[in-house]
Formats: sequence, structure tokens, C-alpha cells
Amino acid sequence: MSTVLIAGTGNIPFGKHPGRSVTSMACEAGLNALKDSGLAAADVRMGFFANALATKLFGDLTIGQNVFADLGMPGIPVMNVENACTSGSAAFYMACMAIRSGEVDSAMVIGSEKMCVPQLGLLSSGNSEIDTLLGMVTPASFAMRARRHMSEFGTTLEQMAMVSVKSRQHSAFNPIALFSKPVTVEEVLASPLIADPLTRLQSCPIADGASAIILCSEALGRRIGATVKVRACVLRSGTYANPQDLARWHTDYEGARLAYEQAGIGPGDLDVIECHDAFSIAEIMHYEALGLCPPGEGGRFVQSGAAGLGGAHPVNVSGGLLSRGHPVGATGVEQVVELVNQLRGRAGQRQVAGARVALAHCMGGDRAADAKSMTAVVLAL
Amino acid sequence: MSTVLIAGTGNIPFGKHPGRSVTSMACEAGLNALKDSGLAAADVRMGFFANALATKLFGDLTIGQNVFADLGMPGIPVMNVENACTSGSAAFYMACMAIRSGEVDSAMVIGSEKMCVPQLGLLSSGNSEIDTLLGMVTPASFAMRARRHMSEFGTTLEQMAMVSVKSRQHSAFNPIALFSKPVTVEEVLASPLIADPLTRLQSCPIADGASAIILCSEALGRRIGATVKVRACVLRSGTYANPQDLARWHTDYEGARLAYEQAGIGPGDLDVIECHDAFSIAEIMHYEALGLCPPGEGGRFVQSGAAGLGGAHPVNVSGGLLSRGHPVGATGVEQVVELVNQLRGRAGQRQVAGARVALAHCMGGDRAADAKSMTAVVLAL
Repeated sequence: MSTVLIAGTGNIPFGKHPGRSVTSMACEAGLNALKDSGLAAADVRMGFFANALATKLFGDLTIGQNVFADLGMPGIPVMNVENACTSGSAAFYMACMAIRSGEVDSAMVIGSEKMCVPQLGLLSSGNSEIDTLLGMVTPASFAMRARRHMSEFGTTLEQMAMVSVKSRQHSAFNPIALFSKPVTVEEVLASPLIADPLTRLQSCPIADGASAIILCSEALGRRIGATVKVRACVLRSGTYANPQDLARWHTDYEGARLAYEQAGIGPGDLDVIECHDAFSIAEIMHYEALGLCPPGEGGRFVQSGAAGLGGAHPVNVSGGLLSRGHPVGATGVEQVVELVNQLRGRAGQRQVAGARVALAHCMGGDRAADAKSMTAVVLAL
Repeated sequence: MSTVLIAGTGNIPFGKHPGRSVTSMACEAGLNALKDSGLAAADVRMGFFANALATKLFGDLTIGQNVFADLGMPGIPVMNVENACTSGSAAFYMACMAIRSGEVDSAMVIGSEKMCVPQLGLLSSGNSEIDTLLGMVTPASFAMRARRHMSEFGTTLEQMAMVSVKSRQHSAFNPIALFSKPVTVEEVLASPLIADPLTRLQSCPIADGASAIILCSEALGRRIGATVKVRACVLRSGTYANPQDLARWHTDYEGARLAYEQAGIGPGDLDVIECHDAFSIAEIMHYEALGLCPPGEGGRFVQSGAAGLGGAHPVNVSGGLLSRGHPVGATGVEQVVELVNQLRGRAGQRQVAGARVALAHCMGGDRAADAKSMTAVVLAL
């Protein structure tokens, strides 16, 4: 299998951008990635545009072609992809395949999302709209998982709150993060209850934002001095393996296993990890699925400090979804952007010293008791 | 470049299906493709779901994961793609790359669309919603092209009408076509004016429908006796090469050139062609871009009978969009399904005798004076 490298990355701050369109945010992130790579627009041979909500919210269709034309790349093959929260990482997966197939030697992936609008409304989580209207909104389904995890493994409210505390400790050092003010366990638990036992500070905030990555072939990568390699890239959709089991996502375990197999590594080799911490309990469950700790030990893992900067396996040193904010289509791209910055040693005060191997994990959508989609990307120097 | 083959195809009749969901139509088409291929659900390793309008019309997101899980393929990588009218053919393009990259040895592409609903409304064509509200709806932009083509090349109203007459001659033999009643030039010209000079019988009808294709690697294809090979597959987005030139789509010419180059053939080698005849004038312009006749000669080409069954280059023997109907996300898939049937000699009364080389052409979206997206697929025995 031929090697794919990262040629460059770019983003814009995540937050409220009332004056910006999905396209304009995407173009700025794309231009930043171009600048970072040293490539010209004409060097980018394929475009992937990831967005989850613009069609639903604004009726926008076929946006990517506008974005890449505005970036000065008319004519190239362009694809619009939607895979809920994994839209960006699934687009990254497709871009890897495009290069490995020999179709092109470079491709740009842009994720852009605009959510801070009045018409956002309820984001569904149940299998049908009726489920959603009856209350099975996204926070509710995670709250059920949290209660189950507490009951089955003795995970505590305090341990869950520690995920949010750690998140803010990290995001204080991330200039694109939406929230950077430190919080305490007491403040997290005292913040308004969203869905018992999850409070507001344990729930990721919506945001506007965009991120971009240019991938390239080994030959092109050598020419431009690219150093970060894609060692594994996995996309899985949900299964029915454990439809009643709220305390573990089978797809999460299976996707992680495949990624480690592809990369020829184990969880012990990871220097830095970004995972899909949509809610505090989610990060705890992802620790377990990724093998950073045994199943059921996620609460105690975060309590031990192992997941913090300076710990054995720093997770979400960017601040993650909880503090960086979660512009859905951009998130899966930004996770990889963060890790590329880490591996290139330019993550400023949140730098994991000597990071050489990194994993980005993302998950999206709901179907039965599983996620609809899961991705895992292993990057290495 | 490794060879990709067609393992099987399936569809459902195009028409009004008020009792069917996008998912249910997709699943039926997918099951038909499975049956045709002789493969089991577990043999399909990746899924692509193409749809253009369900999110806009119904607020549906991340549909493909439901479709492929319902088909008995949970866990596989699934991607939802949207590229306007080329959604289905762009998904086909991605599936080819997935197989050529070595990621999987089989993939299913399903296009499904539900349009016969009251909320469909105006489909935009202009660069902005204001353009659309001011009247630049899709038929209007094609009407301007028709007037320009008439003025520049002497194309006549009767020649344009002949495209529709030929379409119905063909669709009479296609059991999945929405319209199969023959029409005359006089009837076409006397039908209600949609956008001068285009009448209703020169405008493709909306429809509900779904189509599916299973693609496979050379090794798997040999094992199951697959005979139809993908000789070229091209995806291009629009350019600004001729922003004022309404009588030719630059992207169309460029995409065709690339497809011929990839396949190592010329237009003279094509036994049967499906093209994106959204309106009569579109088919005439596509003849020219595909090199079936010189630029400007499209009107005289259809008049000569060369594009009809029994002619030198039969075009849209399925009835095309004009008579088969145009469920947007399904169309690009169905064009390939039709050509596979032709190459496998099972197209019934519309069979092109001895067909060995075929081309499917698709185009979608509007940006400036060009289409946003264009695909060309060359298939051969």
C-alpha cells in the first residue's frame, strides 16, 4: 500500500462567525493550508468538501464546487460528503484512497460548518423524528450511556467532570478554541443540567468554523519535505453487535483494532490522541475502546492524570470538542490538523514533547444503540 | 492502473412512488443488484449512497448508513455523497478509486431520490437564490443555451423536438421508464411552453427512483464471471474557460477528452451512449462535446438519425432523462446500469446489437455559465 503524507494544514478560529458563510470560512481555511504547504492552487488535484448541516439549515447544495473554484482550483474533481460528525474524517479517508489509487498525487480536504444560527433547532439522535420529539435528543442518549457506565463500572460524577476540567486546562493553550477559561470539578457539576447526569460543561458547544488539510503522495511529499505520514485510516459504519449495550460502542472497538493492525502499532505506542468527546462520558468510553485503559476503567484513567498533558497518553490536548467547539463538518478535519501540528512540533504551549505517533478518532450519527459512522486515523513521523 | 469490473446491477421503475421512502427504494435496488451479481451481502465491502435532495426536502441526514445496514451490510465503510445531478456517477467514481486503491475488492453504489412531493418547489440554477427567484430557474438557463445554439449554428426548433421524439421511440422498450407513449415533432412543439423555446416535452420530468451497481476488482470479477470492465472514469468540476459562451460547455469537452484518453479510444469506437439530456438542447450540445459530430452540428446529427437505435451512435436508448425520468441521485447510476445491460446483451427490444463499448455522460449543477460537475464513464467488454 503506497504511503500518503500530509502536505499542509490550515484552519480558522472556532466560534461565532455571524458575518461569514460556509463557503467563505472554507476558503480561508483552504488558503491557510495552501500557504502552509508551499504548494500552488494548481498543484492540488482533487477536492473533498465535508459539511453536515448546510443543506438542512440553508438549503445549500453542491457547495464544494463553489469552494474549490473560489480557491482557484476550477476543473478538478470535487466531491461533497456528509457523514454526520465524521463528515470531515470520512472525507479524509476518501482523499487517502484517491491518492493510493494513483488517480491524483494531491488532494485537499476542507470541512466547514455554520451552526450558530437561530434555525439550528434540535439535533436528532433517535432512530426517527418521533424519537427526537419525544426527547431522545443527542444529550439524552449520551446521558443514558453515562448512567449505565456509572452503574456497571462505578464511574463517578466527579470523574466525568474531570474530563471537562482537563479539556479547559488544554484549550487555554489553543488559540482557535472557543472556550479557554479554566473550570473546576465543582463548577462543572454545578453548571446547568442538560440531561441527567450530564451538565452543560460536559456537553460540547456548537460553533462555526473550518479546517483544511492537503494530502499528497510519497513522491510529492518528498519533493516538498512533508514529514507526517498517514499510517492507518479506517472508516466503519455501525453494527448491531451490542444493540442493548449502552456502556460500549462495538464499532469503536472494532475500528480501533483495525487501525492498530493497519499501522502495525498498539495503543501503548500513541504519544497523543484526539477523540470525539461530544460529552464527557464519550471521552471516557473512547479511552476504553482505543485500549488506553481496560474496559470500564475510563473514569479512573482520567482521574489518574494519564490523559492530561504530561500524562502517559494525552487525549484532546487541543481542548477537544468540549472546549474547542464542534462545528460538525470541520471537527473531523481539525482533529487531524491538531495532530499534524503536534507531530511537527508547533503546538505551542500544548505541545506534547517528542510526539511521533498520533491517533485521531471520530464518531458520528446514531442508529439503534450504535454510532452510524466511526473513523480512526494514525499519523506518524 | 488495476481494472475495475461490474459485478451486478439493479434498479426499480422510475415514476411516482408515494408510498416509498428514499431508503426503501434504495434497498430494493440494492437487493436487485446483489441478486444479479450472485454475491452475498457479506461480500460487499464498501457502500456509497448518492442522493441530492432528501436533506433539503425531508431534513434527512446520513441516510446511507441506514440503507447499507438494512441491506445486511452493517460495519462496512459507508459514504454519503452529493454532487447535484452527478451524485450517482460521482459516487461511482469514488467506488472505482476505492477498488483501485486496494482498500476493498468490492463496493456497492446506490442512488436513490424522492422528488414527487409537494415541497419540491423551484430547483435553482442561478448563482444565488436571488437569481432563482428572479427567474433563472433551470429551464431558463437551458432555454438561453437553446436560443444561442439556434442563432450561432442554425439549429432548428424541429431538430430539438426530434431529440424528444427519439427519446420516446426508445423508452417504449424500457420497462422502467416513466413515459413510454410515442410523440411526434408536432406534439413536442405544441406542448406547453416551459421556457421559450423549450416546451414541456423537451424538459425532463421529475421522478422517484433508485438504481444500484456493484463494482469489483479484477480477481473477484474473474471468480464470478463478470464481463463488463470500467475502461475510464472521469470527474471534473466546472471552469471559467468560457463564462460567456452559452453554446458549449468547456467542462464537457474536457471531460470527454480525458475519458477517451484514459480508455484509449475515440468517439468513433462507441457503440452506445447515455448522456445527460435534461432538456432537448442539452443532448444536442453533448453530441458535440462528446465528439459524435463536429461543434455546431448537433441539430443536424439528430435529424440524420445517427443517434437513434440502428444509427451509427445510438444515444439514450433507455429513453434518457427525458422519458425515463430524472430522480436526481439515481440518474447517474441508472445510466451505467443501462449500459451494462446493453453490453451484457440483455436490453430487450432496445438492445444495440453487438454493443461492446459504451459511454455514460452526466452533468450537474450550475455555476457561472458552466456546470458544477461532469462525469464520463467508459465501459467495455
